[in-house]
Amino acid sequence: ANQGDELRALMDSQGDKKTEQSSNDVFRILVATDNHLGYLENDRIRGNDSFRSFEEIFRIAKASKVDFVLLGGDLFHDNKPSRATLVRASNILRKYCLGDDPVMFEILSDQTINFPDTACVNYEDPNYNIGLPVFSIHGNHDDPSGVGGYSAVDLLGCCNFVNYFGKATNINDIKLFPILMQKGTSKLALYGLGSIRDERLHRTFQSKKVQWVRPAEDKEDYFNLFVLHQNRLRRSQYYKNAISEAMLPGFLDMVVWGHEHECLIEPEESLGKNYFVSQPGSSIATSLSQGETRPKHVGILEIKGDQYRLTKVRLKTVRPFMMRDVILGEVEDLDDSGVLKYLEVIVEEMLENIRNDYGIETAFTKETMPLIRIRVDHTGFKKISPSKLGQNFVGKVANHDDIVSFHRKAQKKDSDGKSLAQIEIDNLLASRDDYKTPIHGRVTKHLKISEDMSVLTDKTIADYVQCFVEKMEKCAILDGFEKEVEAKKKALVMDRSINTKKDIDSIVADKLIIPEQDDQLLVENGDEKIMEIEDEPSLSISAPLSRQSQPSRQVRRSQRSERSQRNREVVVVEDESGSDYVPAGVLCDDSESISDAKEIEPSSRSSCSKPPSRS
Amino acid sequence: ANQGDELRALMDSQGDKKTEQSSNDVFRILVATDNHLGYLENDRIRGNDSFRSFEEIFRIAKASKVDFVLLGGDLFHDNKPSRATLVRASNILRKYCLGDDPVMFEILSDQTINFPDTACVNYEDPNYNIGLPVFSIHGNHDDPSGVGGYSAVDLLGCCNFVNYFGKATNINDIKLFPILMQKGTSKLALYGLGSIRDERLHRTFQSKKVQWVRPAEDKEDYFNLFVLHQNRLRRSQYYKNAISEAMLPGFLDMVVWGHEHECLIEPEESLGKNYFVSQPGSSIATSLSQGETRPKHVGILEIKGDQYRLTKVRLKTVRPFMMRDVILGEVEDLDDSGVLKYLEVIVEEMLENIRNDYGIETAFTKETMPLIRIRVDHTGFKKISPSKLGQNFVGKVANHDDIVSFHRKAQKKDSDGKSLAQIEIDNLLASRDDYKTPIHGRVTKHLKISEDMSVLTDKTIADYVQCFVEKMEKCAILDGFEKEVEAKKKALVMDRSINTKKDIDSIVADKLIIPEQDDQLLVENGDEKIMEIEDEPSLSISAPLSRQSQPSRQVRRSQRSERSQRNREVVVVEDESGSDYVPAGVLCDDSESISDAKEIEPSSRSSCSKPPSRS
Repeated sequence: ANQGDELRALMDSQGDKKTEQSSNDVFRILVATDNHLGYLENDRIRGNDSFRSFEEIFRIAKASKVDFVLLGGDLFHDNKPSRATLVRASNILRKYCLGDDPVMFEILSDQTINFPDTACVNYEDPNYNIGLPVFSIHGNHDDPSGVGGYSAVDLLGCCNFVNYFGKATNINDIKLFPILMQKGTSKLALYGLGSIRDERLHRTFQSKKVQWVRPAEDKEDYFNLFVLHQNRLRRSQYYKNAISEAMLPGFLDMVVWGHEHECLIEPEESLGKNYFVSQPGSSIATSLSQGETRPKHVGILEIKGDQYRLTKVRLKTVRPFMMRDVILGEVEDLDDSGVLKYLEVIVEEMLENIRNDYGIETAFTKETMPLIRIRVDHTGFKKISPSKLGQNFVGKVANHDDIVSFHRKAQKKDSDGKSLAQIEIDNLLASRDDYKTPIHGRVTKHLKISEDMSVLTDKTIADYVQCFVEKMEKCAILDGFEKEVEAKKKALVMDRSINTKKDIDSIVADKLIIPEQDDQLLVENGDEKIMEIEDEPSLSISAPLSRQSQPSRQVRRSQRSERSQRNREVVVVEDESGSDYVPAGVLCDDSESISDAKEIEPSSRSSCSKPPSRS
Repeated sequence: ANQGDELRALMDSQGDKKTEQSSNDVFRILVATDNHLGYLENDRIRGNDSFRSFEEIFRIAKASKVDFVLLGGDLFHDNKPSRATLVRASNILRKYCLGDDPVMFEILSDQTINFPDTACVNYEDPNYNIGLPVFSIHGNHDDPSGVGGYSAVDLLGCCNFVNYFGKATNINDIKLFPILMQKGTSKLALYGLGSIRDERLHRTFQSKKVQWVRPAEDKEDYFNLFVLHQNRLRRSQYYKNAISEAMLPGFLDMVVWGHEHECLIEPEESLGKNYFVSQPGSSIATSLSQGETRPKHVGILEIKGDQYRLTKVRLKTVRPFMMRDVILGEVEDLDDSGVLKYLEVIVEEMLENIRNDYGIETAFTKETMPLIRIRVDHTGFKKISPSKLGQNFVGKVANHDDIVSFHRKAQKKDSDGKSLAQIEIDNLLASRDDYKTPIHGRVTKHLKISEDMSVLTDKTIADYVQCFVEKMEKCAILDGFEKEVEAKKKALVMDRSINTKKDIDSIVADKLIIPEQDDQLLVENGDEKIMEIEDEPSLSISAPLSRQSQPSRQVRRSQRSERSQRNREVVVVEDESGSDYVPAGVLCDDSESISDAKEIEPSSRSSCSKPPSRS
């Protein structure tokens, strides 16, 4: 009933004929994140959960007539999703995203920069009828890896189901180009950054190497929306393993924060900055932790001019999940023989509560069977077998085999500031589904690498083994090995005492067999020996973002393409302090402010505004 | 020049305005197979080979203005293709298959049977502009496995790039439903059967459980084309590890034989039957064997009425490959110290020959660098290190590290018939890229399973380990384990001395821990205890194949959809001897001939003609 009301209210707000004119100026965006498609796909009870909620989200999107769906990463649970997961995801997207519904907003920015692989937003491809565009970044689960650096989201991008954006090409120097959109009088600058290992990204922020490209014309007219997928630190303390709200620039209006599974979707004002943060939370519980017990929602974000409104819509398909803490030592008249019975009673109570909360009157079905977690402090008691407790709840509890988790007495908490931050971090991390496998320890233990190994260390080897195991990258170890050798070679090249490729080879060969090299590594350049390092993604970031006319392309919705050509936006780069600058052709090293954005002629633009393709 | 001439001739044959009318009655089909996309994708030299030739095939298809492309399996090399391979494959298909080119033929048969997952041929989906349809079966490399039984080809099917057909739902009882097509006055019945393990399929053929469904109306008007992907035995001898031409029914007109990599594309009349066989061969060499040295071609198959013409088109992008046999013992004045030099001279000679054959005048490029294989009978000589020979040919030979293969004196061959067949088989198998890993031996060696294990044997365990390793199925071993337990349970159910599920559980539990069961396995049915086994794909195969009208669907090419509704074809089933029968609603157990095909009303048809979905 709750969801129905919300939806009806949403429909009322735009279904009315009188308001139709004004709703032509309102962006309506469904925001959701962490769908984890394929999570426990082989589980007989829970195998369909991720897909059921994903489909519900698209049903809501359709019913709410949103302009587009915005996803915050971890669309897939596995880095290499199974064929079944890919097929099921595709089928849902095909069902809801294709069709004749009109797409009422246009892209003003250069689509070859926003979508380097397809060079075009999906609904402008003349060979597809897209009725509901989806924009998505990647998360830590579906992050790019392997040959070519493709993400699982790329698989949905190349067949035009999803507009995948926010893939940083150089983690040490990130330039965020917004997708500039217009609907009626409203303008939206959509920034996205796919998941990067938190420590790395934190460092890039700290070294002021995250640059925000802003529209040079009418930049104050834009509503600035940013979607990211990182550990979130709400306090202002810096902690290297998370991104603090204070690190994000003040010109932003709204941040959609992915990765955090707890649903805190109602916009919260950031501390010290002017933007609001909405944390939609996951659409499926992938860990039995406190944060996942909160009811799951998605949001309908409406934007008109510089105003926004977010209406949350509860997901009805999400499996009920209840959690309770029990300290056995505090229970009267309890001994080891009574623990099982005691816990059984608690589970029954919890089931009863869930029945009441969810209005479930008949027996639990495969779909409604809840998740139950009891965290038991068993200090002074023996553990009981979780499966022994579980066998009475087959058909009643979805996770009957792991209802209980045991721990010893909680340690006393410090009260000084730093500790508190640490505790906050620990709590945050505990509620996440980050990989926590003991691979590193095991590799180190088995390798016992001698100290004088200077190319491959146990830590780097463990990283590659982890990638091999968890991301199922067949070649992770070999590729990693080659990478480390390359890095060592580069380092040696920088050493002035070494002058020829032969010198390097002989030094490296002392310890390692070198894989065959096709390319000459040394660039002879006077007495300076400079490596050919990866170029920056774009040398001319001051180029206008508008797409050039492409006369050979057929665009079905002609008014859209006409409008695309009309506005030519010039962009400037904004550093973290919020000032603008336009580098003259080549990116400046420092972030000094330069004013007077200039428009460059289309001919020169085309040659320099496209970043090098990631082949 | 050769290819250019061929293409020009092809274009002439239909580009002429005068012949336009008659070409409206001619099916033009590009036939190709075994593209092995992703083969050696990490190889710095050869990594692009499979994609380059695949793209060339589609360039030829476009230039030749074919009606569709027919692929014979092994589109992908890996059962779980990498993301990079999937993206690259999709990009090629998107580039060539989408667009406004008119599709000039129509499907007459029930598309929900031909394409059970999408229920529609890709070019009739109103949300896609398909200009060049592709029809493909799967091969042994990209065969269905894992959860849901999806093939890698399914991944291209669900996003509408490819029409995937010929997936048998029950290997022990195969019914082949043709895709019935019409172009002008020509009618085509396209049969397809994706790869099945040869021994299994052989057995199904032998037990007469392969049934050929034929159009009941005007069946003599159809040209019957069959595409399969199996070991091919051209002699009439039966050999359990291959399919003999004699096993296929006589009503066929043409068979496109996949899996065999040797290009024998020119149609060859089958022995004892009236059909012709075209074996296109692979578009990339995946083994350094004799069969792969033949020039690679694809074919343009033209069909008009009961006439056909096949024009072969040589693939220019295929890497040159030359092979030579050397018997060191027959070389005069050679000792161990001279072997390396002797082989080097031979490689140089071969490179010179390739230069002449291919007209390569400049240095070999990454694309033209050839494959070289010298098979050395080294009886009486020591082996040399292949990499020692190879280091002189870096940048000249694509496979410089494995130019030579060594073997001892060839054994004398028998001359009696049976042996010869065996030799033929051995030669055939040797030229294939089937997996030949020593997994089975290793598993057996490590397990040393005791004799009284009656559920899991070392052979079955080895099968699952192999699937885990080679198909990267994470759950292969667990799933296999569960499958064996199920099978054992079923066997026990058939045992009359056992009457309840409990009895079974207790017997099985003696040796194994049983995974949790959701479903009751026993179906109590009088004193007969019958298992719920998989139903046959369709109980009513006599239903007309035409698709029902779908008023809500928009079909852009209206004349096509109209025609689809017009013809209603009734099908009958043909057994191997070629006689027809129409079962009355339910499939008869034996294959007796029944005439008088009846048309069933659409309403009853819809409920029974769709096979159960494979969820």
